[in-house]
Amino acid sequence: MARTSLAVVLAAGDATRMKSSKSKVLHTVGNLPLIAHVTRAAAAAGVNKVALVVGREAERVTEAAGAGLGVPVSAVEQTERKGTGHAVLMARDVIAEGFDDVIVLYGDAPLISPDSLAAARDERTKGADVVVLGFRAADPTGYGRLLERDGELVAIREHKDASSDELAVDFCNGGIITFSGEEAVGLLEAIGNDNAKGEYYLTDIVEIARERGLRCVAIEAPEEDMMGCNTRAELAEIEQVWQARARHAAMISGVSMIDPSSVFLSHDTVLENDVTIEPNVWFGPGVRVGPGAVIHAFSHLEGADVGANASIGPFARLRPGTELGEKAKVGNFCEIKKAKVGRGAKVNHLTYIGDAVIGEAANIGAGTITCNYDGENKHLTEIGAGSFIGSNSSLVAPLKIGAGAYVGSGSVVTMDVPDDALAIARARQETKPGRAHRLREKIAAIKALKKQAQS
Amino acid sequence: MARTSLAVVLAAGDATRMKSSKSKVLHTVGNLPLIAHVTRAAAAAGVNKVALVVGREAERVTEAAGAGLGVPVSAVEQTERKGTGHAVLMARDVIAEGFDDVIVLYGDAPLISPDSLAAARDERTKGADVVVLGFRAADPTGYGRLLERDGELVAIREHKDASSDELAVDFCNGGIITFSGEEAVGLLEAIGNDNAKGEYYLTDIVEIARERGLRCVAIEAPEEDMMGCNTRAELAEIEQVWQARARHAAMISGVSMIDPSSVFLSHDTVLENDVTIEPNVWFGPGVRVGPGAVIHAFSHLEGADVGANASIGPFARLRPGTELGEKAKVGNFCEIKKAKVGRGAKVNHLTYIGDAVIGEAANIGAGTITCNYDGENKHLTEIGAGSFIGSNSSLVAPLKIGAGAYVGSGSVVTMDVPDDALAIARARQETKPGRAHRLREKIAAIKALKKQAQS
Amino acid sequence: MARTSLAVVLAAGDATRMKSSKSKVLHTVGNLPLIAHVTRAAAAAGVNKVALVVGREAERVTEAAGAGLGVPVSAVEQTERKGTGHAVLMARDVIAEGFDDVIVLYGDAPLISPDSLAAARDERTKGADVVVLGFRAADPTGYGRLLERDGELVAIREHKDASSDELAVDFCNGGIITFSGEEAVGLLEAIGNDNAKGEYYLTDIVEIARERGLRCVAIEAPEEDMMGCNTRAELAEIEQVWQARARHAAMISGVSMIDPSSVFLSHDTVLENDVTIEPNVWFGPGVRVGPGAVIHAFSHLEGADVGANASIGPFARLRPGTELGEKAKVGNFCEIKKAKVGRGAKVNHLTYIGDAVIGEAANIGAGTITCNYDGENKHLTEIGAGSFIGSNSSLVAPLKIGAGAYVGSGSVVTMDVPDDALAIARARQETKPGRAHRLREKIAAIKALKKQAQS
Repeated sequence: MARTSLAVVLAAGDATRMKSSKSKVLHTVGNLPLIAHVTRAAAAAGVNKVALVVGREAERVTEAAGAGLGVPVSAVEQTERKGTGHAVLMARDVIAEGFDDVIVLYGDAPLISPDSLAAARDERTKGADVVVLGFRAADPTGYGRLLERDGELVAIREHKDASSDELAVDFCNGGIITFSGEEAVGLLEAIGNDNAKGEYYLTDIVEIARERGLRCVAIEAPEEDMMGCNTRAELAEIEQVWQARARHAAMISGVSMIDPSSVFLSHDTVLENDVTIEPNVWFGPGVRVGPGAVIHAFSHLEGADVGANASIGPFARLRPGTELGEKAKVGNFCEIKKAKVGRGAKVNHLTYIGDAVIGEAANIGAGTITCNYDGENKHLTEIGAGSFIGSNSSLVAPLKIGAGAYVGSGSVVTMDVPDDALAIARARQETKPGRAHRLREKIAAIKALKKQAQS
Repeated sequence: MARTSLAVVLAAGDATRMKSSKSKVLHTVGNLPLIAHVTRAAAAAGVNKVALVVGREAERVTEAAGAGLGVPVSAVEQTERKGTGHAVLMARDVIAEGFDDVIVLYGDAPLISPDSLAAARDERTKGADVVVLGFRAADPTGYGRLLERDGELVAIREHKDASSDELAVDFCNGGIITFSGEEAVGLLEAIGNDNAKGEYYLTDIVEIARERGLRCVAIEAPEEDMMGCNTRAELAEIEQVWQARARHAAMISGVSMIDPSSVFLSHDTVLENDVTIEPNVWFGPGVRVGPGAVIHAFSHLEGADVGANASIGPFARLRPGTELGEKAKVGNFCEIKKAKVGRGAKVNHLTYIGDAVIGEAANIGAGTITCNYDGENKHLTEIGAGSFIGSNSSLVAPLKIGAGAYVGSGSVVTMDVPDDALAIARARQETKPGRAHRLREKIAAIKALKKQAQS
Repeated sequence: MARTSLAVVLAAGDATRMKSSKSKVLHTVGNLPLIAHVTRAAAAAGVNKVALVVGREAERVTEAAGAGLGVPVSAVEQTERKGTGHAVLMARDVIAEGFDDVIVLYGDAPLISPDSLAAARDERTKGADVVVLGFRAADPTGYGRLLERDGELVAIREHKDASSDELAVDFCNGGIITFSGEEAVGLLEAIGNDNAKGEYYLTDIVEIARERGLRCVAIEAPEEDMMGCNTRAELAEIEQVWQARARHAAMISGVSMIDPSSVFLSHDTVLENDVTIEPNVWFGPGVRVGPGAVIHAFSHLEGADVGANASIGPFARLRPGTELGEKAKVGNFCEIKKAKVGRGAKVNHLTYIGDAVIGEAANIGAGTITCNYDGENKHLTEIGAGSFIGSNSSLVAPLKIGAGAYVGSGSVVTMDVPDDALAIARARQETKPGRAHRLREKIAAIKALKKQAQS
């Protein structure tokens, strides 16, 4: 029978140093809440259930933790703040449901990898009762040291209590502990609060377990896996690590990034083979880019599906609901929202396309605006395949322009245009010879009057 | 009685390696001239006066040094270049006015912090006659070493003159020296030029002071505090340090930055609590952003006041004179200049608003242009509360559009529109069935002719 | 008589780890193919001929290697992959033409500097028969060690074969080897494949040469010079080094960059003295910027010539064929393509200028669009000196607007405008008092119907 495991995720922190109006674990990395990173890592490592210890904004935190997870989440409330040992015990009832392993995770440490969790569980199957994740610190000052003897973890020594020999140890406590589900409640209840702060420390579990003749071990994981955040500066550092990992994975898989450090990815960004990303591109949630597409510099994509060999930007913005066909082109200072752009169609310059369907190989001239909003309703613009929309046209929706139609530059189109028809809606030009000179005199006179008025 | 102090700021450097048409100290960091950073740090540390030793562009340098300082600045001219000791003596008359402390600072080292200066002054109050700011160098090669004995500074040894024992010292001279105002002129006049370059070195003051039985000490400050610049590459490094400090301070105070390294701040940028800054945002001088506002990626702000919970960008530009009300929204490819945008008003797409007042909750359609300039004069556009400006409209100023008015898409509005009125100014559409085909034949014929002409 | 030399450039690699549809050496750094960087470095170091060992995409690689090189390139095909020694022998016929020196270079290591190659050749003139370029590695793990005795290179020891003493050596093989042209074929033919992989290793040449009584030496070069790339992540690292070098060179020569790390340069970017580059600027190929010009943040330039003291951006895009006169100004959300913009002319806001000539001091209003394309042909727009184009105008090309002419805002101009004439082409405004209210009722009714339909 498969091994069962429970993740207890502590997500009730106060986070005063974030100076934020929302819960710390709802802040995002890669456009996904911290708490969701943690629960997804747990799910990816195969846990069967998540016990979520919540405080502030319990409902929103629980929703973020469980959204699309595929693993049940039980929220338990923590009303008092008495230390990590006490916090884990809030999940006593869930723990008591019976699991082979209990893993304690932190809602503000989103970089934990499923691999590290799996490694801890491996130690459990090999007979360890308590497994502590540690890391080698370049500068261990301030961290609890993991003291080992004969392959066993004998104690977690706080920095301030460490002897000089112990201070020389660079193997530090990362806080993530996996232990026997059978022993869990017993061990947790044995944790006392006879210390300076009067708190219940989860780290005491090692000493207690050893007193009971249980076996404790520590295993090493990357330091980054255990980075937590208490300030927005630390949150930015975590974002940086996350982005670096995501960018590297993309490049290794066959995506070119000229300046990876300036490309921002979301947790669900999909970039297919031979995609090229120029510097300064922002991928919000929900973007897929097909093979061979080029995303030029200064582009901003969100909720968009980009077809193979399409070309985006520079200075393009694709908003949610954008679907670009193969070899479609969206150029500079163009915004596309909730619109399908057909294969090979071109929207190249200073254009706003909203609530529209554009046929294959249509050419949308510079400065075209779909007038899709009447103040209350959004209306659809349909533009036929192979049509030509002259520059600086206004397309007043609801509107249907037929296949192969031609709209004259500068037109305000308010009525449907049949297939192959020509539509023009612009005023007659009046040219008045020599009048620019007289106009300039008038303008100069206004300027003189203004100056007079100011003096 | 409070202690008095004088900062002597050396700002006459030639700076040939900057290859610049302007004085080195007028180059900026955080959009503030280097010299102003130095004088402001001195003022923040409580100096009573600044003696500015100037050369090139004396007038502009003096103005930049004193602007908004709140502390008097006396400029003294340096015509010859004979070393730092000689340069400080140019300020002899100001020094002779009588101060408890004299602090020598450098116009091209803008990162000096008031804390470091205050620490030096503390040493003065504790009895030191000369206080040298030093730093621990990762690689001390090339720096003068601070040699100490029994808590006193006994010499500043140039790298080339140092013994092998002395070369092992990593405590280096940062150049910033604070000394007794009473002894100042005497010490400075005692500096000789009996050395290879025939220059008067300010560092000799330590040796001279000790010969006179005065007490010299060195105190440590961050290396960054003393970074000076001789090339534009070094200037860029200083900018980087300054920006990192400013970003960190903002994040610690409750501002979220997703990629701090891509956010550029100015010396006077004010970001209130719970502001979110996406990557790639540029803050020019004179920007305040109210609580809860979001500045999306690729935005450029200067001289703008952004209301609480407003939303800017992506790809927005706010120019001087912009005032955005609470929850106002300025979207992509929009430029706002010298305009008030009322609470909850929306300027979302490809719009230019210049010299305008927009009422609360007004909706400005995509592609709207205020035609504010006649070639000589700028004219005002007033747009009433709750009005709706259809997309791609041209608003020819001076113009007043009333509250609740409605402008049809694609209109060129030249006359005032009363409250609740509807204005439309666009040509009638002509649709010619089947004519697109004939037009395309004509266009193809032109192409063929062009090809023929080229062959 | 001058010394002659041949560069043998290995450019036949499979590059499966790039996961690319094109040859690795055609990927670019600084917008120039890797292979061209290598051949240009060789040419700059004075080689007389290049033997290019090609595999995949032989034709395109050869073209990229030789374009604008000024040195003849002979491509030789490599059909089997049997190691570097075998690959170099593919060029046997070219080597046999007779050169004093043969230099082996790698098509995927584009950072090699002409200085390093010249240093190797110097050793040849001083009597060495084989010269290996090495570097001091911070972490030498995995690299072949260069073992020296009495100033001679005695062996290149692979990491896995090294003794513990040899592992302590941090002087590593960079792969670039220069050897006697006279001995070349003999040495290369002596290389055997009696090893685990059955490959012919070029590094064996050292041992062979010594057996023949020839003199081998190793000289040090910067590690970066020898960076090669096997993945797109490594390609991005090489780009970063290349950009850092190019930016530093620009700053030292008198260009200000506020955030150099966000400025992207191409191999042929020319920035003259006192140019200022704000953060986030992209220079594609073919850009020259004249003295004193300012390139504001978020600008994208390619194939453009920018006049002295011009001002570009923020958010400007200059495309190929742009020529800006002195003090010309191109502002936010403007695109210029194949156009001359005269001295002091202004294109400041949300404008598209394509296929145009704009006279001196002309003012192009916000939102102006040149309608240059009819679906098949591009047509020219000529705008006279000192003219004024009102905002949101559409200029339907071919079109000629005379000097000093004035176009009213919002006009669609289809016919030529003589010098000093005034042209207006816009519809009459109709204002209907109180009608906005009735329109809103209608719009609200539509909304209600939609809701009904959805429920």
